[in-house]
Amino acid sequence: MAQNIYDKPEFFTGYSQLGRSLHGHDGAAEWPAIRAMLPALGNLRVVDLGCGFGWFARWARENGAAHVLGIDLSENMIDRARQDTSDPAIEYDIVDLEQLVLPEASFDFAYSSLAFHYIEDFDRLARTIHASLLPGSHFVFTIEHPVYMAPTNPGWSTDTEGRRIWPLDRYSVEGKRVTDWLAKGVVKYHRTLGTTLNALIAAGFTIRRVQEWSPTADEIARNPDLAEEVDRPMILLVAAQR
Amino acid sequence: MAQNIYDKPEFFTGYSQLGRSLHGHDGAAEWPAIRAMLPALGNLRVVDLGCGFGWFARWARENGAAHVLGIDLSENMIDRARQDTSDPAIEYDIVDLEQLVLPEASFDFAYSSLAFHYIEDFDRLARTIHASLLPGSHFVFTIEHPVYMAPTNPGWSTDTEGRRIWPLDRYSVEGKRVTDWLAKGVVKYHRTLGTTLNALIAAGFTIRRVQEWSPTADEIARNPDLAEEVDRPMILLVAAQR
Repeated sequence: MAQNIYDKPEFFTGYSQLGRSLHGHDGAAEWPAIRAMLPALGNLRVVDLGCGFGWFARWARENGAAHVLGIDLSENMIDRARQDTSDPAIEYDIVDLEQLVLPEASFDFAYSSLAFHYIEDFDRLARTIHASLLPGSHFVFTIEHPVYMAPTNPGWSTDTEGRRIWPLDRYSVEGKRVTDWLAKGVVKYHRTLGTTLNALIAAGFTIRRVQEWSPTADEIARNPDLAEEVDRPMILLVAAQR
Repeated sequence: MAQNIYDKPEFFTGYSQLGRSLHGHDGAAEWPAIRAMLPALGNLRVVDLGCGFGWFARWARENGAAHVLGIDLSENMIDRARQDTSDPAIEYDIVDLEQLVLPEASFDFAYSSLAFHYIEDFDRLARTIHASLLPGSHFVFTIEHPVYMAPTNPGWSTDTEGRRIWPLDRYSVEGKRVTDWLAKGVVKYHRTLGTTLNALIAAGFTIRRVQEWSPTADEIARNPDLAEEVDRPMILLVAAQR
């Protein structure tokens, strides 16, 4: 099963204070790019895999979704998500995505934000999602970019000329990566970009768009901290279709 | 137009001495992976974009292709390719891929090895190739991986612990890259992996496979120099279908 890092007290406390936790989509720099990839949600039955505090579930309902099922491994997050809505068309479930079972052909749209890098068996998950969607349905997700996940030391460094560089190594060595982020010993699973896309294709999806998120000039002007994101991709956005 | 670096004497002399020039596919470490992506070529009309010395054109004919049109910007290479075959079903043309025009729906398979990173307008080229293929036809190509092309200093470095690292920067800054390889001032055009795939999708292709080449354990055992390729991808292989 996937590591339940979000329910570790120090991780949950730290994560709860991130901009994306406090402000939802407004606190997630990649949200405008994600939003541009989304289909119209009117009357769709949506499943959100790794729904966290439920920001997307509530947004989907505000944007016309008929029903949203939000799934997350973290009891803390699902508790909070449940507190934050009284909408009977939003349902939450505590489930490990490694063991996910969904009813077949029951959803019109699948969504996931920054959850799949915690999953070891992405092939199985891609097949499960594919089977849960009706033909023609879209699937949009984000994941930590493999260039961000791969290195032995995944942090900025400088070269001999003082230039900021990302010290890439082990890109083609797939598998477990253990890092310290908000808590010690966070377990993620690195896959090459090709492996992720090929898993989707093998599951029956058609790839519609692949975007390695980077900030626009306007976004950098408003938030100069984002400038470093131009040097190496941190988040991968994928749109696929059953 | 694309820079005609292959016809610079020092570049051509250097390139002619590479393993892949002297030994063709046997001298190209990525060939087994490419070969595994190819469709059966029996009776297909093939176009090879950036055909170089014609190794693939001859291989395709040996493997049943009905006809091969090899296209390259380099007169030196096409001269050599013409000298190396007397097969009337292999035709060569000196054409800049930036201005490529092909007859519509005339080919059953398009191939290209390590040529597209010299091309500035990949959108146009993808549309041209798509229009030249019959519906259902496959398109397999390799290109320098964007992680390999992006950096200000695209060469191995070491971190403070002496570990070999690839100093990635400017990944999301697309456009011209000028490097010294066999000759000074070689001009290439960097695009993110997403941009390359999205250009194919926009042209009408379906993505069938994306492989960021890295050597197998057996290949490293036979040629230990390949071990570094595991640390950062150098070659991207893509299979698409009209």
